[in-house]
Amino acid sequence: MKVYGDIQSGNCYKIKLLTSLLDIEHDWIHVNILAGETETEEFLARNYNGKIPVLELDSGQYISESNAILNYLADESVYLPKERYQKAKVLEWQFFEQYSHEPYIAVARYIAKYLGLPEERKSEYLSKQTGGYKALGVMENQLSKTSYLVGDQLTVADISLYGYTHVAHEGGFDLSKYPHVRSWIQKISSHPKYVGMDAAE
Amino acid sequence: MKVYGDIQSGNCYKIKLLTSLLDIEHDWIHVNILAGETETEEFLARNYNGKIPVLELDSGQYISESNAILNYLADESVYLPKERYQKAKVLEWQFFEQYSHEPYIAVARYIAKYLGLPEERKSEYLSKQTGGYKALGVMENQLSKTSYLVGDQLTVADISLYGYTHVAHEGGFDLSKYPHVRSWIQKISSHPKYVGMDAAE
Repeated sequence: MKVYGDIQSGNCYKIKLLTSLLDIEHDWIHVNILAGETETEEFLARNYNGKIPVLELDSGQYISESNAILNYLADESVYLPKERYQKAKVLEWQFFEQYSHEPYIAVARYIAKYLGLPEERKSEYLSKQTGGYKALGVMENQLSKTSYLVGDQLTVADISLYGYTHVAHEGGFDLSKYPHVRSWIQKISSHPKYVGMDAAE
Repeated sequence: MKVYGDIQSGNCYKIKLLTSLLDIEHDWIHVNILAGETETEEFLARNYNGKIPVLELDSGQYISESNAILNYLADESVYLPKERYQKAKVLEWQFFEQYSHEPYIAVARYIAKYLGLPEERKSEYLSKQTGGYKALGVMENQLSKTSYLVGDQLTVADISLYGYTHVAHEGGFDLSKYPHVRSWIQKISSHPKYVGMDAAE
């Protein structure tokens, strides 16, 4: 299979991390968003919404949306619970990630790291801090009770949230008041099959 | 089971619609967001993120995030495909909804309908139009090829997207250029077990 993405994007990196944990062979095709490579006709045929990551199956079918790709790849693996309630809790965290976490933490990081915090986006950058800290607080609350987001086993919910949380400092977020989040980051990054954002694409 | 929500919120209404399609008995507990009822200590014990809808199971366990609740309720039903690729496509649309559709269409509607389009939020309201129309274009593209978002059967992906799309005009969106979206709305609202936002909570 093929993954179209940019490993410095947390949404794409999630896929790289899971393929490593599951030993899934794939080709990684680097896509440069800033150069407009997600807006070409060729790319829009893969994902009409013009976003990475996109997974291309050997059948030629495509799947987009990072968390949908994770759940596809983790199907029948230890990283996706089969029990109905647990399965719903995994999705709950993944939807939380896309609605209440990513739009703050990832966007603040994008403005700071990719765009170099230009003056005209400074107020937007600052406005992202409140929502980002609120999301970190929700994670801290859960991780003070359970080792991972959904109980005591690593699931794709953790991989979804790890994507941008472990680089939240690049968006200006200070994790010093979130000790459970920090030790959860430590635990995930110590996994024997872990790869970081510096992995070869 | 109990559903905590406000049926005028598209995210909550999705749950009401699916419970009707599946004949799921439940108590609906009305929650008034504007009166701060999602911020009480009692409510935060149900969902620490302070958002509706929340599903309370008979076991006393809670599930939040509208699309996670839909998938929980639809488990093993005709509205959630079992085949791996189809299942991923349902999630793809649901994550699209929360990231690329709801933040534009639902927020524009909220500013117009709930807040009465106050002067200080007018520029935010206008800024939501581009993203909202882009999302409608992505739906139109798919619905020009298939009857429903994931093939020829109604799934929870359609219910997720229907929630705010069928009231998009309340956020200032004109659907006249989206004929396939309009006929899809018509098809869903003609389902014999359909209930609208005016259903009894």
